[in-house]
Amino acid sequence: MKKIVLLRHGQSTWNLENRFTGWTDVDLSPEGVAEAVRAGDLLRDAGLRFRVAYTSYLKRAVKTLDIVLDRMDLDWIPVVKSWRLNEKHYGALQGLNKRETAARYGDEQVLAWRRSYDVAPDPLGEDDPRNPRFDPRYEEVPAAELPRTEALCDTVKRILPYWQCEILPALAHAEALLVVAHGNSLRGIVKHLKGISDDAISGFNIPTAVPYVFEFDDGLRPVKDYFLGDPDEVARRMAAVADQGKSR
Amino acid sequence: MKKIVLLRHGQSTWNLENRFTGWTDVDLSPEGVAEAVRAGDLLRDAGLRFRVAYTSYLKRAVKTLDIVLDRMDLDWIPVVKSWRLNEKHYGALQGLNKRETAARYGDEQVLAWRRSYDVAPDPLGEDDPRNPRFDPRYEEVPAAELPRTEALCDTVKRILPYWQCEILPALAHAEALLVVAHGNSLRGIVKHLKGISDDAISGFNIPTAVPYVFEFDDGLRPVKDYFLGDPDEVARRMAAVADQGKSR
Repeated sequence: MKKIVLLRHGQSTWNLENRFTGWTDVDLSPEGVAEAVRAGDLLRDAGLRFRVAYTSYLKRAVKTLDIVLDRMDLDWIPVVKSWRLNEKHYGALQGLNKRETAARYGDEQVLAWRRSYDVAPDPLGEDDPRNPRFDPRYEEVPAAELPRTEALCDTVKRILPYWQCEILPALAHAEALLVVAHGNSLRGIVKHLKGISDDAISGFNIPTAVPYVFEFDDGLRPVKDYFLGDPDEVARRMAAVADQGKSR
Repeated sequence: MKKIVLLRHGQSTWNLENRFTGWTDVDLSPEGVAEAVRAGDLLRDAGLRFRVAYTSYLKRAVKTLDIVLDRMDLDWIPVVKSWRLNEKHYGALQGLNKRETAARYGDEQVLAWRRSYDVAPDPLGEDDPRNPRFDPRYEEVPAAELPRTEALCDTVKRILPYWQCEILPALAHAEALLVVAHGNSLRGIVKHLKGISDDAISGFNIPTAVPYVFEFDDGLRPVKDYFLGDPDEVARRMAAVADQGKSR
């Protein structure tokens, strides 16, 4: 069976500080580096032979991918980076502590901002220095496509064309592909692949650095999906993600 | 002025052991990692803004590039990898100690294998497990193009098409490009850019991890070249490379 493996980057310095990150380009924490090493070892031991890998423009994903490929002795394969695989843009919340934000606005509001399909945080101001239009890495992206905030439905809208036009067609010429991205950008892809409803996707959490394997038939239809690694460990990691946005 | 920076990877484990490496995919040594960090800091402090980077299929170059881009906060730029930027293939010498080989065959013969323009070491046997045809990373390279040994003139022949068709044209759309490759593959490029004769190129040594800047006019003609960093340090590093193949 052909396979695409989805991998959420290892812990970042802002995961550790429990802050809304979005498009902020923060680094991996030392634990995040160790997680990436473990993910690479799992993938190597599973005998996966990736021929192309995809990642976002954000270093926590790029560096996770570099570490994984090195552990697999696949430093040489093509890596394609796209802003379309970036994390959900968190608008004006970017930089705020999740727990403090929950204490101020309530768990329910924060859960809506984090997990609802169509509620976006307040946008960054047009002249906010955090507006991506000031960042040279996005200068070739049409202004109309650059977000100042996103609900998950917006993230899905910018990811799906890339999935459909770049990633999935590449699977026709490869045994396996690797996509290293972010909690919410990967939730958008999983929603599409598994046909999860707008409501149900809010309860679906992707743990950091646990390889999530999708198998495809010859017509490139997804037929099976599973996490690699110890099931108890995977369940513990999914629960840890779900707890991040609670005030207590 | 538009710029292309050539960078030889940091010290590898086999540079350290003074063995002929060629296409053997050995890792960076800890000193090689430190060299890459320093090169990245030099390039960042020089204010270079690369928009694309090129490297070989060999991890000592790929990892040097990844480290450099991270120090420059340019993890997000496109990286293009090509077997055409690989080191000169050292044929049957791959794996042998340079000093021992010099003691056995004489300094002059080893210098010819290492530095002459048109003398190639004995080729790997067709069924030698080191023959690149057994390595999955080269399976898309036409058999007629895959070397079992190379003189520098052969290395130049496979690099120049890539330089002329991929790298130089990309400079039309970029302020600066970065090429991270190998001692001999870069000597081939420098020979072409500076019009160095077949004889004189043997005396030209590229130090590890010292950024070598070429400036180009609007017609993409090279007009100026220089190393970044302290000139005494650069001279010391060039001399160290020249000494590697001597028996004493």
